[in-house]
Amino acid sequence: MDDLEQLVPSTAREDSDGEEENNAPVLPTHQRPSINASNIMEQSWCSVRQRVFGAASNIQGTHEINENIAPQYESLDYDICENTLMRREEDSKGDKFVFRKRIARWFVFLLIGVVTALIACCIDIAIEELSSIKFRFLKYYVDLCMNDRCMYIPHLYWVATNIVPVLIGTILVTYVEPVAAGSGIPQVKCYLNGVKVPRIVRIKTLLVKSIGVTCSVLGGLAVGKEGPMIHSGAVVAAGISQGKTTSLSKDFHFFNYFREDHEKRDFVSGGAAAGVAAAFGAPMGGVLFSLEEGSSFWNQSLTWRIFFASMISTFTLNVILSAYHGFPGQLTYSGLLNFGAFPNISYEFFEIPLFVLMGVLGGILGALFNHVNLKLTLFRMKYITKKWLKVVEVLVVSSVSATVAFAMIMLIDDCRPLGQDPTKFPVQLYCGDGEYSAVASIWFQNPEASVRSLFHDPPGSHNPCTVGVFFVIYFALSCWTYGLSVSSGLFIPSLLTGAAWGRLAGMFLEYLFPNAAWTNPGKYALIGAASQLGGNVRMTISLTVILIEATANITFGLPLMITLITAKWIGDLFNEGIYDLHIHLSGVPILGWEPPQLSHNIFASQFMSFPVVKFNCIESVARIVDTLRDTIHSGFPVVTSVHDPRNQQTEAGSKLCGLILRSQLIVILQNKIFVENKEEWMGKSITLKLFRDAYPRYPKIEQIYVSELERSYTVDLRNFMNPTPYTVPLAASLPRVFKLFRGLGLRHLPVLDNRFELVGIVTRKDLAKYGTHH
Amino acid sequence: MDDLEQLVPSTAREDSDGEEENNAPVLPTHQRPSINASNIMEQSWCSVRQRVFGAASNIQGTHEINENIAPQYESLDYDICENTLMRREEDSKGDKFVFRKRIARWFVFLLIGVVTALIACCIDIAIEELSSIKFRFLKYYVDLCMNDRCMYIPHLYWVATNIVPVLIGTILVTYVEPVAAGSGIPQVKCYLNGVKVPRIVRIKTLLVKSIGVTCSVLGGLAVGKEGPMIHSGAVVAAGISQGKTTSLSKDFHFFNYFREDHEKRDFVSGGAAAGVAAAFGAPMGGVLFSLEEGSSFWNQSLTWRIFFASMISTFTLNVILSAYHGFPGQLTYSGLLNFGAFPNISYEFFEIPLFVLMGVLGGILGALFNHVNLKLTLFRMKYITKKWLKVVEVLVVSSVSATVAFAMIMLIDDCRPLGQDPTKFPVQLYCGDGEYSAVASIWFQNPEASVRSLFHDPPGSHNPCTVGVFFVIYFALSCWTYGLSVSSGLFIPSLLTGAAWGRLAGMFLEYLFPNAAWTNPGKYALIGAASQLGGNVRMTISLTVILIEATANITFGLPLMITLITAKWIGDLFNEGIYDLHIHLSGVPILGWEPPQLSHNIFASQFMSFPVVKFNCIESVARIVDTLRDTIHSGFPVVTSVHDPRNQQTEAGSKLCGLILRSQLIVILQNKIFVENKEEWMGKSITLKLFRDAYPRYPKIEQIYVSELERSYTVDLRNFMNPTPYTVPLAASLPRVFKLFRGLGLRHLPVLDNRFELVGIVTRKDLAKYGTHH
Repeated sequence: MDDLEQLVPSTAREDSDGEEENNAPVLPTHQRPSINASNIMEQSWCSVRQRVFGAASNIQGTHEINENIAPQYESLDYDICENTLMRREEDSKGDKFVFRKRIARWFVFLLIGVVTALIACCIDIAIEELSSIKFRFLKYYVDLCMNDRCMYIPHLYWVATNIVPVLIGTILVTYVEPVAAGSGIPQVKCYLNGVKVPRIVRIKTLLVKSIGVTCSVLGGLAVGKEGPMIHSGAVVAAGISQGKTTSLSKDFHFFNYFREDHEKRDFVSGGAAAGVAAAFGAPMGGVLFSLEEGSSFWNQSLTWRIFFASMISTFTLNVILSAYHGFPGQLTYSGLLNFGAFPNISYEFFEIPLFVLMGVLGGILGALFNHVNLKLTLFRMKYITKKWLKVVEVLVVSSVSATVAFAMIMLIDDCRPLGQDPTKFPVQLYCGDGEYSAVASIWFQNPEASVRSLFHDPPGSHNPCTVGVFFVIYFALSCWTYGLSVSSGLFIPSLLTGAAWGRLAGMFLEYLFPNAAWTNPGKYALIGAASQLGGNVRMTISLTVILIEATANITFGLPLMITLITAKWIGDLFNEGIYDLHIHLSGVPILGWEPPQLSHNIFASQFMSFPVVKFNCIESVARIVDTLRDTIHSGFPVVTSVHDPRNQQTEAGSKLCGLILRSQLIVILQNKIFVENKEEWMGKSITLKLFRDAYPRYPKIEQIYVSELERSYTVDLRNFMNPTPYTVPLAASLPRVFKLFRGLGLRHLPVLDNRFELVGIVTRKDLAKYGTHH
Repeated sequence: MDDLEQLVPSTAREDSDGEEENNAPVLPTHQRPSINASNIMEQSWCSVRQRVFGAASNIQGTHEINENIAPQYESLDYDICENTLMRREEDSKGDKFVFRKRIARWFVFLLIGVVTALIACCIDIAIEELSSIKFRFLKYYVDLCMNDRCMYIPHLYWVATNIVPVLIGTILVTYVEPVAAGSGIPQVKCYLNGVKVPRIVRIKTLLVKSIGVTCSVLGGLAVGKEGPMIHSGAVVAAGISQGKTTSLSKDFHFFNYFREDHEKRDFVSGGAAAGVAAAFGAPMGGVLFSLEEGSSFWNQSLTWRIFFASMISTFTLNVILSAYHGFPGQLTYSGLLNFGAFPNISYEFFEIPLFVLMGVLGGILGALFNHVNLKLTLFRMKYITKKWLKVVEVLVVSSVSATVAFAMIMLIDDCRPLGQDPTKFPVQLYCGDGEYSAVASIWFQNPEASVRSLFHDPPGSHNPCTVGVFFVIYFALSCWTYGLSVSSGLFIPSLLTGAAWGRLAGMFLEYLFPNAAWTNPGKYALIGAASQLGGNVRMTISLTVILIEATANITFGLPLMITLITAKWIGDLFNEGIYDLHIHLSGVPILGWEPPQLSHNIFASQFMSFPVVKFNCIESVARIVDTLRDTIHSGFPVVTSVHDPRNQQTEAGSKLCGLILRSQLIVILQNKIFVENKEEWMGKSITLKLFRDAYPRYPKIEQIYVSELERSYTVDLRNFMNPTPYTVPLAASLPRVFKLFRGLGLRHLPVLDNRFELVGIVTRKDLAKYGTHH
């Protein structure tokens, strides 16, 4: 070691200051390797620094370490392993292969768009048809019992028609596939960020999610179908692109060159976009959603493909739904717009401050919603852990939803003349002849239809009291509902809550300025809806575009933007967006967009993991099997030991030659690609196909049988490892490591000391500990 | 050296194959260092490979090396230099500073939006007012001379009113600031890509550009003002964010912490977006333009700020222009839409194939345009090199424009009844009383107004023959005009050309299906315009959104997308987009989005530059000065030499300790921060401010005086260098190096051999040689 140091002299010795300072670690390192490169710098500068500038404050204390990182989440591997097999495969493929792959890729995106739209159509139509039956009977019973004084019958009927579908939905979600709970957007976000959320893109999840969300909406919960549709798009993309399903254990053997994490991720981002496009009829919104929530590296050609998938998705959806609504081929039929067209809406200069104010309100209400929901979720995580308890909670919420709505209909007297507001199921209730109950009309339809009502009902259709009570009830219900063990989207409930208070604000303005042309309560309902949704989820760009596309009104883009940006700013003062809150609560090691501020003084030596479990280039099978069994690491550096020939006592340093993944080792062991077996496996060609066929669910090490004789064999890892992994020096700062890691989608990043020996490794969890900037 | 190898044994020696192959380079390297790590791999695999799989074909021949990379372009430095000064500065700043910087950043984006919009307004209003005068007199003379048979007068008047403003414009561009020629979009694209195009973001450029484009449009050239407005936004952003202008040598001393390339780039992308927003009234389009053309690393918070700037820009523009048009405060006034609103436009299912067909046509016409323009540009580069020749060419084009238009008006007889199509300056010409000449109405207005006419004139307003001839003339004129030494945008001429043939197609359909409701020539004009523009510039996403926003019709988004994607696909079969063609013609080392296909077998050893000019940690002033003088490199690795103590003969290996930039060395020399001067400069605090104040135009080394005594002094580079540059091994493949370089915006990437000694360096030019994938 000493001799080595003579060969690789620490620069400190050349220091012109001549100050041979002790190697005392400058930074708080509990037995961590000292940062040599940094020390060199610090040593030479130290004296100058203290004399000239005075001792600098130590900033490190300000960075909180988040210990709530769940260990079970693994990373996806977006880095391409350029091993010999891969290079050989490339050698054998020509431009023709590249062209074919490119065509295949576009084709897959086409399929993703079509299939996602088909699923969305099924959900749409199922909900439409079934709820129409439900409300028709409900109206029938209400009309019938109004005279017979048997209102308990419609109430019971309502509770029953809520409970039955919700029961089906929650049982599916709770017992069959718990990962299908909620909107799926946080999970998709994690996946695109590079975290392997188990079972998130499986066919089973898709089935449970689609049926589940139909049941939830049908069951009258305060949920929307949009989030689950986005998740469905992601699953469809992952499924189609791989050309096989492990759930149904069927391998179609096409597209197998897409069986890599980074290819799959690209398709999934397209699928999510197609989902948004199908959910809202918003292709541009889909692209932006995918970018805003998912991407890290902007890739132009990928974005085109995403755009293409979204477009195809909207197109397919519109073709089918226009036919369903009886206007086949009329793709501009306005009934296709989720929230109805706002054809003649304008705003005046002086309304801008009002929009800002509403943005502030939305930000506050959104932060409140998130806070209450967070507390509720913590409560649930603590007390509602049993599966049957979850089901019971869902049923309670479901019957409370029906009961509260029923009570509101009974208690509030808000009659409007028929004809002015043609709802689908107008009920007379206590109202006079030729009148209908405006309260019932909000409740006797799906939440999405209610949003449309609040947006488009002519001024005077609603009573402020009705809308006010409705807002309070719906705010509470949706807050309680999000996080239940059912498939449920948050978009529609947020929009509905916001539309309610927005419309209320509009009515108030109408009251203040009775003759002004600009006081359109529908317009303010739209602003309120945007504001509330922005306050909850804190997306700005994609939401703006989604709302523009879903209302087909481009001139109203500016007010929407102003509102959404304000809502985000205000909300961010209090807490994070609801999706991020839930992600952090579940301890997923998600990486933000930017490294934490003022973290240039945190070095790799402080956050890397060490000691590193490593393999030699030629490693014995026994050691590989034992190591895989004894550790949970998913990647291992491959090193050559460097012995100092003159000093056998010193520990050997290790020079990094490559990086090998657990999954690769598993395949190697499974196929017994041992050096001693060479004669045997050299007959078959060892290609990447072997690895692709096993992707993505590799067997566990325990499932692989290795005989005693085989344990004495060796494996030559050099043909399989990634020979040129990116590395960083010990003195690399957190932002520098973060950018490399995040920008290139790495999974393992070896850390070298200033003798270029391997001393540590940085993984996602090491970085996620620092609360990065979202 | 041999001894060193014993210490750092080549893994080949441990190879269980026991094959000690010769170190003969496997890859064609003309005297390049052999790829040791790769060799190791290859050596052990070689035999297996050849026996089992047969020799693989060598793919390298398929990668063409583009030697047309101009040497004068330097890179921007987006990597943060984390030297001691920077770390110390961070130590001394707290969260308060972070907060203040964040506020300042938003404020700068606000200013960018406002100022960009103001400039756009000035250009808009100047063009509107002056051209209105021009055409009024033109109409007056035409009306006057029609009876007096003195038509040479309006012809001469027209030529004169074309020539005078164009002369002013071209003299400004040719003699004052040649970089202001053209649309500026290619230059902004290069800047955002990381290439320092000299003088591109200076105030002088802005002035010349703004006045120049006003003159060009006024001079009746086939140009638009949109491209220059985008460029203006970029200059405004660069200027405001730096808080100083070197052109006017004024330093306002605020925002000086934004004086770094990466900060400036962020602002410039915001400025470009604000420019688009102001040019088209399309804030979303601005964001997407910035992303599609500029960004590489998607950063959410940056995108929000860009969005904010675009929004502010549109808002400011709308406020001013609505007042100018006499509707103050009415921000939804439809006259603000660049291309007019399409309120009631719909399309049928069976029209989709027609849109695809038009996309194909647009792609072909666009490719033709690009091809002809390319040949023309090559001709110009060869023959029209003198400045006066450029001016003459501009004048020729300008008078030809007027003459051709005049001839067309005279020769084509296309009279329409007055009142049906109220153009601003209807002229009677040969037409009967109560009629006006439809030919003259296309020409007697600015190109932008002509686009509006073709989009919105009711069916039957135009004669197919007129529109056909107009298309041919305008196609030729705009192709000839782009590349002249004037400020000129390509958007409007492309749209106009496309609108012409699109309207023609629409008329043809009307003729075929006389009673069909869907045959609206205006709609087909829009599709044609999109298609032609898409075929020329090959942008899809941002163009879709820009056209949607500029026509305020969201339901028509899908046809636009289909057309644009088709046009891009077809056009890409023939050549690149016009901007990329011009970029490559000028030899700018721009990096595409993705590395070339099938390039995993090209290694860093093959494309890196070597030998490397390097400095020692403590380097003599003499050597620094001489090296800076003798080389043109902009960055130098800092190394410590590693001598083998037992063998003084062998060349010393060099271990990388950091990387220092030429600009930093210049500042060090200028301020005489020499070790021997320590007493002197330690009094002043040496902070980053010193470096920021000199940014971005550092003195040349020849401008710095170093005395003979000082030449014997030394500099301690360790406090200033970037201590942890990213590095790659020799065996790293082209895609791997490319991703690192492109993803992180690097400028210099040291290459280490498998003993971790510095052997080469990769710069942008080394990568740009390979035709990367756009």
